[in-house]
Amino acid sequence: MNIQCPLPTKTDEIVKLGHGSGGEMTQRLLKNYIQPLFNNSWVSQAHDSATLPWDADRLVFTTDSFVITPLFFPGGNIGELAVYGTVNDLAMGGAEAKFLSCGLILEEGLPLAILERVLISMAEAASKTGVKLVTGDTKVVERGKGDGIYINTSGVGVLESNQSIDPSRIRRGDLILLSGDIGRHGISIMASREGLEFESSLASDCAPLNGAVSKLLRAGVEIHCLRDLTRGGLATALVELAESSNRSFVLEESSIPISEAVQGACEILGLDPLYVANEGRFVAIIPESASELAIATLRETDVGTSCEIIGRVEGEGYAQVILRNSLGCDRLLQRLPGEQLPRIC
Amino acid sequence: MNIQCPLPTKTDEIVKLGHGSGGEMTQRLLKNYIQPLFNNSWVSQAHDSATLPWDADRLVFTTDSFVITPLFFPGGNIGELAVYGTVNDLAMGGAEAKFLSCGLILEEGLPLAILERVLISMAEAASKTGVKLVTGDTKVVERGKGDGIYINTSGVGVLESNQSIDPSRIRRGDLILLSGDIGRHGISIMASREGLEFESSLASDCAPLNGAVSKLLRAGVEIHCLRDLTRGGLATALVELAESSNRSFVLEESSIPISEAVQGACEILGLDPLYVANEGRFVAIIPESASELAIATLRETDVGTSCEIIGRVEGEGYAQVILRNSLGCDRLLQRLPGEQLPRIC
Repeated sequence: MNIQCPLPTKTDEIVKLGHGSGGEMTQRLLKNYIQPLFNNSWVSQAHDSATLPWDADRLVFTTDSFVITPLFFPGGNIGELAVYGTVNDLAMGGAEAKFLSCGLILEEGLPLAILERVLISMAEAASKTGVKLVTGDTKVVERGKGDGIYINTSGVGVLESNQSIDPSRIRRGDLILLSGDIGRHGISIMASREGLEFESSLASDCAPLNGAVSKLLRAGVEIHCLRDLTRGGLATALVELAESSNRSFVLEESSIPISEAVQGACEILGLDPLYVANEGRFVAIIPESASELAIATLRETDVGTSCEIIGRVEGEGYAQVILRNSLGCDRLLQRLPGEQLPRIC
Repeated sequence: MNIQCPLPTKTDEIVKLGHGSGGEMTQRLLKNYIQPLFNNSWVSQAHDSATLPWDADRLVFTTDSFVITPLFFPGGNIGELAVYGTVNDLAMGGAEAKFLSCGLILEEGLPLAILERVLISMAEAASKTGVKLVTGDTKVVERGKGDGIYINTSGVGVLESNQSIDPSRIRRGDLILLSGDIGRHGISIMASREGLEFESSLASDCAPLNGAVSKLLRAGVEIHCLRDLTRGGLATALVELAESSNRSFVLEESSIPISEAVQGACEILGLDPLYVANEGRFVAIIPESASELAIATLRETDVGTSCEIIGRVEGEGYAQVILRNSLGCDRLLQRLPGEQLPRIC
């Protein structure tokens, strides 16, 4: 790092890996440094995308940088992850992804054949999700100033329905529908990084979610809020939604689907699967009346075959997420405090 | 770099710093690896932004990553550069920037006070240019896998007039208007990096260009094409435009404004100012009939006080850029072949 700042610094705090965890430290960075400076109605929505006041507020805009290591992992690679990640962020705002940009930061010495494989995956993922990559940029940094490939994708999408899908619509009595079993992405990255072999079948859940969301909307399912489970896992996503909506969620631990492979790996590694990252899972907060249609519809999609209702919105005016086990004991869930596994996406 | 690719590589070519130069090597990377995969009408426009088929084709989308070193330099820093760079790319498509995203890749160990200064500059630059930062993302990479701060900004803008401003509109007889003296950004970065002191007054030209473009359009100036001069300098920008329009440009060397400080520094360093980077300069290709109004209008703006007509579009069907000196001798200009100064933006 070669920093020349002409002005004295007012604090000796530094960036730590936990600031990129998507958990508590990331939240503090956002609250203390970013939101006060970029104080407009879109940033304060605290959603993963911004609805632009354009064409009757139907356009949605989002951005995501991908720094995952390794670049290739069981079930995917950084290229498809970069396309799906941004398509998914748009889907979580109820928008169909239309246009993507691609900003590459390449490290000197990267084999061009690796770049080519990543770009081919991006093109395939774009084609699969129906999004067009329309503009891009390439920068190269010296050896030791990057790590192969970093990718930023930004996306413009179009709202699919007139439903506004955001945390402010979450109501007491709503059900929490989880699209599938959790923890596959984080565990398979960790296994791949450490050379561990838990189960030959354990691969990342990395997948596009736009098809499933479209199907729910077209089936006429009333959806109050959507959130994909990425860094920080299920627990962090739900704590964020509880805080944004100022409501209390109660989860039934026994109803949360976790594969035996992930459960076993978490026990060995001392990890809590509720905090392990996913890249193809989401929660939908829906009114109870919509739950039967939602489950039936979601189970017909590739990504939703094992979806389950895992909890309910109970109190309001008090933001908390309670995990109730089969004995009726309650545990209060917090955001992921620091970093569990750096560079998971 | 920790690359695990499960497939054999088909070539042993690697990424070199020159692939990020914005010159010939960048062009080959685009042609060989990127354009064949993302083959749609927007990518093949070969412009710095894409006009989206939305709201009667009035929306424009662009992306740019900033990896400049040092983060703070005479005349600017990475934060304002990241805002102006993307605002300028939109302006070059004739669009007024409306919404920006911000993707941060931070290196572990970065002082938060440095991040704060950069973010404050971004907020100030956004306010100055009238653009709203509406969505963002933060990732952190380990020490030695980044370099302080990398920033991606993507932007959505709105076309300001019904004129289509792109290389296909360049015609024989058009004049080439350069907005100001060249080379300040590249020379001041080099001086700052190497600890050289040429002139106390030598600072980057880093500036927003949207105001000047708006003023030209509102004055009713007919504009065929615009291009900002960034990596690769004036020469590379004009070679790109000559190739995109398949036309021949003739430049009068003596009419190209270069400050004494830049000229002197280039002589000492053995650099050609035509290839040195700029961050607040552009060329406008305009019909001769528009030139008087264009010059008068541009000279009234902050960034255009020293604008000059530097050449003319002469032949067609043959893409070349000829530099004619005061003795009438011609020199054929090429793209910057490799890398002159890595990480200039």
